[in-house]
Amino acid sequence: MEAQVALVTELQDFFRRRGELELDYSKNLDKLAKSLQLRHKEQKQKREQWPLFSSYACWQQLVTQTKNLSRDHAVLSEVYSTHLVNRLTQVMEDVQRIYKRCREIGYETHEEILRVLHELHTTMKTYHSYQAELRQAEVKLRAAEAQRGKLEQTLSQDKLDRSKKYKLIEKEVVKRKNKYTDAKLKALKARNEYILCLEASNTTIHKYFVDDLSDLIDCMDFGFHNCVSRALLMHVSAEEGRQKSVQSGLDALSACINSLDSRLDKQRFLEFNHTAFMIPKKLEFQGQKTDDQSPEPEIQKVLHQEMESRLNQLQQRLTTLRTESEEVWKTLETAESTLLEMLNAKDYDCSGFFKENPIPPTKPLETVSIKQRADRQETEEFYLTKFREYILGSTRIARLDAKQEYIRQSLLADSPEAKSPPVKHVKTPRRKRIGRLQISGQPKLFGGSLEEYLEATNQEIPLIMKSCIRVINLYGLHHQGIFRVSGFERRKQRSTYKIMYLNVG
Amino acid sequence: MEAQVALVTELQDFFRRRGELELDYSKNLDKLAKSLQLRHKEQKQKREQWPLFSSYACWQQLVTQTKNLSRDHAVLSEVYSTHLVNRLTQVMEDVQRIYKRCREIGYETHEEILRVLHELHTTMKTYHSYQAELRQAEVKLRAAEAQRGKLEQTLSQDKLDRSKKYKLIEKEVVKRKNKYTDAKLKALKARNEYILCLEASNTTIHKYFVDDLSDLIDCMDFGFHNCVSRALLMHVSAEEGRQKSVQSGLDALSACINSLDSRLDKQRFLEFNHTAFMIPKKLEFQGQKTDDQSPEPEIQKVLHQEMESRLNQLQQRLTTLRTESEEVWKTLETAESTLLEMLNAKDYDCSGFFKENPIPPTKPLETVSIKQRADRQETEEFYLTKFREYILGSTRIARLDAKQEYIRQSLLADSPEAKSPPVKHVKTPRRKRIGRLQISGQPKLFGGSLEEYLEATNQEIPLIMKSCIRVINLYGLHHQGIFRVSGFERRKQRSTYKIMYLNVG
Repeated sequence: MEAQVALVTELQDFFRRRGELELDYSKNLDKLAKSLQLRHKEQKQKREQWPLFSSYACWQQLVTQTKNLSRDHAVLSEVYSTHLVNRLTQVMEDVQRIYKRCREIGYETHEEILRVLHELHTTMKTYHSYQAELRQAEVKLRAAEAQRGKLEQTLSQDKLDRSKKYKLIEKEVVKRKNKYTDAKLKALKARNEYILCLEASNTTIHKYFVDDLSDLIDCMDFGFHNCVSRALLMHVSAEEGRQKSVQSGLDALSACINSLDSRLDKQRFLEFNHTAFMIPKKLEFQGQKTDDQSPEPEIQKVLHQEMESRLNQLQQRLTTLRTESEEVWKTLETAESTLLEMLNAKDYDCSGFFKENPIPPTKPLETVSIKQRADRQETEEFYLTKFREYILGSTRIARLDAKQEYIRQSLLADSPEAKSPPVKHVKTPRRKRIGRLQISGQPKLFGGSLEEYLEATNQEIPLIMKSCIRVINLYGLHHQGIFRVSGFERRKQRSTYKIMYLNVG
Repeated sequence: MEAQVALVTELQDFFRRRGELELDYSKNLDKLAKSLQLRHKEQKQKREQWPLFSSYACWQQLVTQTKNLSRDHAVLSEVYSTHLVNRLTQVMEDVQRIYKRCREIGYETHEEILRVLHELHTTMKTYHSYQAELRQAEVKLRAAEAQRGKLEQTLSQDKLDRSKKYKLIEKEVVKRKNKYTDAKLKALKARNEYILCLEASNTTIHKYFVDDLSDLIDCMDFGFHNCVSRALLMHVSAEEGRQKSVQSGLDALSACINSLDSRLDKQRFLEFNHTAFMIPKKLEFQGQKTDDQSPEPEIQKVLHQEMESRLNQLQQRLTTLRTESEEVWKTLETAESTLLEMLNAKDYDCSGFFKENPIPPTKPLETVSIKQRADRQETEEFYLTKFREYILGSTRIARLDAKQEYIRQSLLADSPEAKSPPVKHVKTPRRKRIGRLQISGQPKLFGGSLEEYLEATNQEIPLIMKSCIRVINLYGLHHQGIFRVSGFERRKQRSTYKIMYLNVG
């Protein structure tokens, strides 16, 4: 049992040191989180714009996580160095106390055995001495009997009857016979006693080795395994608590990562700086009223001819530019998807590092990574060049388009007699979006960009809007909560989620 | 975008410091595990008996766990301080590079706009100057026309036809008229040009603010969110790997805790010290051969009477002792279950400490815990006293029982004529076991104590043994692998598990 106590001491020592270690770790984590927060406070001015970005939430979550981790490890430390150490101390005390008592009981049984053995020894001695007495008595009896026999042979029957000597001998024989019988009885009793003691001793010793020792050990062990296992279960429970806590932190972080949203960030950024990004007023025409008088027909004719030729030129120019731009857009799109593929390589999986035979987290080969970087930069460069071409090209197109449109309109206005049916308005090509490919799936109906939603769903008005308007048309005036009393925030949210769910489902 | 770069810097800093911290923690854990192992090696002599105990496996598991934890945190540190920091550096580089390029493109569009505005300004100026010229030409035309009108009024038609002055004026008017028409045409052209430029400028500016700015921001952001989220996902993945690893360690520890087995420990301990605990040889009867001669009938009769009376005494004594012992056993059992209840209090749950609003792991009130300790010790004391009484009492019973049995046997042997049918052998009461209550459920069939198994299942021979014997009887001689070739270890184990499973199921 000494070994078990030593083992518990070792466990206790382990938990004490582990507790110190956890405390240390917890303190370091806390320091880290605090210093980050402090710096954040100090640089509040500089970091004014941070809350605009969805990555800020991730950062915050990381800090919170660190704080929580620190707290959890502080708890672990507390559990280890206070609870577990105390518990194990108690276990040791208990075990040692019980052990002492059991030893005492063991000594008592030993004494009992010794007593029994002593008794056995005594009875054996008694038996042997009685046996000796018996043998003496027997010898004496035999001697007397021999004397009597001799006498009986030498003397006749009559003589014998009268012989005084014979009578004496006869008496002697009877006396000796009685003595012998007594001795025999005593010896037999002693023998029985001895055998009984022998049986008792054997049984006692057998019982001691077979039952009592086992019982004593059981008794010494009593509760030891329970207590140790409960102490260790406390450790397991504490660790599991930590695990759960970390897991929930990770889940929260994952949620933050999933809600990283470049569109939303852009939106917030634009709103925050709306003064800078407000669309300026249109430039007004600055001319004389006198222009209003319509020019002389011959002049107008000249002008018309010129404008028409110009319109033709513009249209030709536009067609080529559009084709070019289309070309540029296509390469741009390809470059974007290539780049995205590079960016989205699933190279963040670390699970391999934590297996039984961990793959050491080696840095990828220097040359390979340099190659990758170079590829990436090349693609990026190409992408940016194309982006530049596209932006500038589309600006030019927009400008020419505006001119062309104006000329067309004024030509139409000038020659109403021509009554040429207005050229069917070319559907403006769908607006092209940079980074469109990054976003997968349908754009958000709630909290997203309405424009993008309509583009993606090819609707003019979102179905939900139509439906709402229809319902309001039908029931709006008769129901509370539409025009008359505003609804509960909670109920509005619930309805929103329901609709979103149905939309997705 | 500056803010985003700053945020990434902050993230990088966080991971760098976190990495250092994890490394520190990992080193400490490693030191702890190593020092424990070292001490274990040094004290190998002293700890020779440790492997006998099932708690040793727990200790080993704890050390292994610590080592694994150290390894995992080393990996975490590596992931943080190398992979994540590098990754974030790349993100920053990329973002800054793209940002620079986008700024350049932005400047270009700005220049374009300025160019367009400049053009607008020029056309406006041209328009205004042509307008002024037009007005001059008009004034001159009007003056010439007025002169002509005056002349027409003063002179008659004939005179006019012949008047040289009129002709001159007529010429002048035509000349001025032509000039005016030219000016008008130029002015109108300039006006058109101006309006076209105005349209173009408005469109360009509008496009810049509505589309280009948004596109530029999108382009600047391009990949940023992806890269940041992938970096953070790496963190999540690493943490999850750690979680899984810790969880498997905890599972292993739980398995160790579950296999804490006091019976097995006792068994191993007894086997290890078998020389000390071997049942000694029975004490032999040391007497004379002479005893064999049966004593004289009268002596035997006396002896018989004495023995019978003694037997009666013994039996009476035994009955009282048995009752007493039974009583003691009952209290012992009660004490044991009370004690077990105290020991098995489920007080190791720490999950409450790790929730959002953690219950601080306060030590239980000093007084309460002292009270509990006192209660426990009192019960334990009582239990041990009873245990002592029981052990000593049962030893006495066993001794007397042995004597009684011997007397009964010898009485029977001495009076064979009595032919009293042997008293139906009292079924020896089931052996009582200390700590029996601790073990719940059926004792193990494989790797357990056969005796206990039979006791618990009330069988004489385990069913599996009977079944095996039957099968061997039937097929043993015809099958390889029973008597003729020994089976594969693997297959034996599989069969064992199958049987155990069926047994449990």
